[in-house]
Amino acid sequence: MDDAPNSEHFTLSPIGHMVSDYPDKFGIPRQPGLAPAANAKLVLAAPYNDPLAVRGLEDFSHLWLSFIFHQSPQRWSPLVRPPRLGGNKKVGVFASRSTHRPNRLGLSLVRLVGIDTQQGVVLALQGCDLVSGTPVVDIKPYLPWAESQPDAKAGFAPQTPSLLAVSFHPAALDTLTQRSDSATLHALIEQVLSQDPRPAYKQKELASKRLYGVRLRDVDVKFRQRQQGEATTLEVMAIEPYDER
Amino acid sequence: MDDAPNSEHFTLSPIGHMVSDYPDKFGIPRQPGLAPAANAKLVLAAPYNDPLAVRGLEDFSHLWLSFIFHQSPQRWSPLVRPPRLGGNKKVGVFASRSTHRPNRLGLSLVRLVGIDTQQGVVLALQGCDLVSGTPVVDIKPYLPWAESQPDAKAGFAPQTPSLLAVSFHPAALDTLTQRSDSATLHALIEQVLSQDPRPAYKQKELASKRLYGVRLRDVDVKFRQRQQGEATTLEVMAIEPYDER
Repeated sequence: MDDAPNSEHFTLSPIGHMVSDYPDKFGIPRQPGLAPAANAKLVLAAPYNDPLAVRGLEDFSHLWLSFIFHQSPQRWSPLVRPPRLGGNKKVGVFASRSTHRPNRLGLSLVRLVGIDTQQGVVLALQGCDLVSGTPVVDIKPYLPWAESQPDAKAGFAPQTPSLLAVSFHPAALDTLTQRSDSATLHALIEQVLSQDPRPAYKQKELASKRLYGVRLRDVDVKFRQRQQGEATTLEVMAIEPYDER
Repeated sequence: MDDAPNSEHFTLSPIGHMVSDYPDKFGIPRQPGLAPAANAKLVLAAPYNDPLAVRGLEDFSHLWLSFIFHQSPQRWSPLVRPPRLGGNKKVGVFASRSTHRPNRLGLSLVRLVGIDTQQGVVLALQGCDLVSGTPVVDIKPYLPWAESQPDAKAGFAPQTPSLLAVSFHPAALDTLTQRSDSATLHALIEQVLSQDPRPAYKQKELASKRLYGVRLRDVDVKFRQRQQGEATTLEVMAIEPYDER
């Protein structure tokens, strides 16, 4: 390839968009599969919403979604600070899964739980970590014999992140019990908060009383840190409606 | 997302291009990892060839490459015929890894064997199934704890494809021994032919005497079918230079 590579461009159109329990970027678990209680649907768009295009997909349990980090800025930088390194060590953007990357391409392994072809094509997914509205540009089946490499060496992120304990203030539990989706919303809040969505530099402040908010499904979940000696837990203080959806 | 999805476009620029032992599409193993003897380099392009952009990548053994099937036509169809199904059964394009897909996006899991930052950035890769010149649009590290799903259900492609035995005609072996890369070229030819690169509908003709050619590295490998009762093997008849490179 001796021709000027920078004159080369490829234009992608979304094949569909996500509808998910994550109205905002903030709080989304940093890898797929970590919050299975999250609802996620991929709604295919015309002309890709032809039921024929997903024939045979029901025989696969896992799918790769390629998507665009559409809420991330177009600018990228060669070095990024992965949250897994506490936010103060830099690695190359191509050694990370950072959203601030050239071409803003994302890749997510999700579980396929259902296919609805009543009207167009809607895929029901589990473990999806995509913000609602994310444009998806491809779907591929997962091939375990080729793609499962349990012994791969994984640099600075060698294992599942450790989890924080999450508790609920009685007032928050009250709100929960009044909802028809209380069981799944309870699980979702617990799964998302146990990943510690706070910014890395805040995670080190032992005595912070700051109230954080994370939007999940149709609520704004207010939570704060509880410190008992060395042990940090997160406590849900309130579950409030929000109507921007 | 109620806004018209079809007016949405994303423009991707290659971050680099492949230099590989596969000058042509024909004969390339249909999944990565099946021909580890193939040489492959990913040469990053400016401004992405900053050594900082790959800092820390050396700690990962496997990478995902997102790339464009640039030699495939822009047209796509909802149904495709996977070679694994003998070429006569159709599945949906999103249930396949077919190159004839919307957005022509490809995804390949490769082994990282070296990083050269002497002049720009060149990654040495193994098991790569990409035609030389392929534009690569992203590199991501492989995360075994999130992405290794050995129990995933894999539809019509549940396991590694079975391999054909490959033999070499004495004349072909002669040519091989005269080359400085005889060992790796021998392994490459064997690995590629054992996948049976012949078109699916030809694989069923038991008595074919047809001579096929597959281009690997800088040679044109001529091979044909050998039939002994039910057992089919492929025999390399000649290894000829070609100079289009």
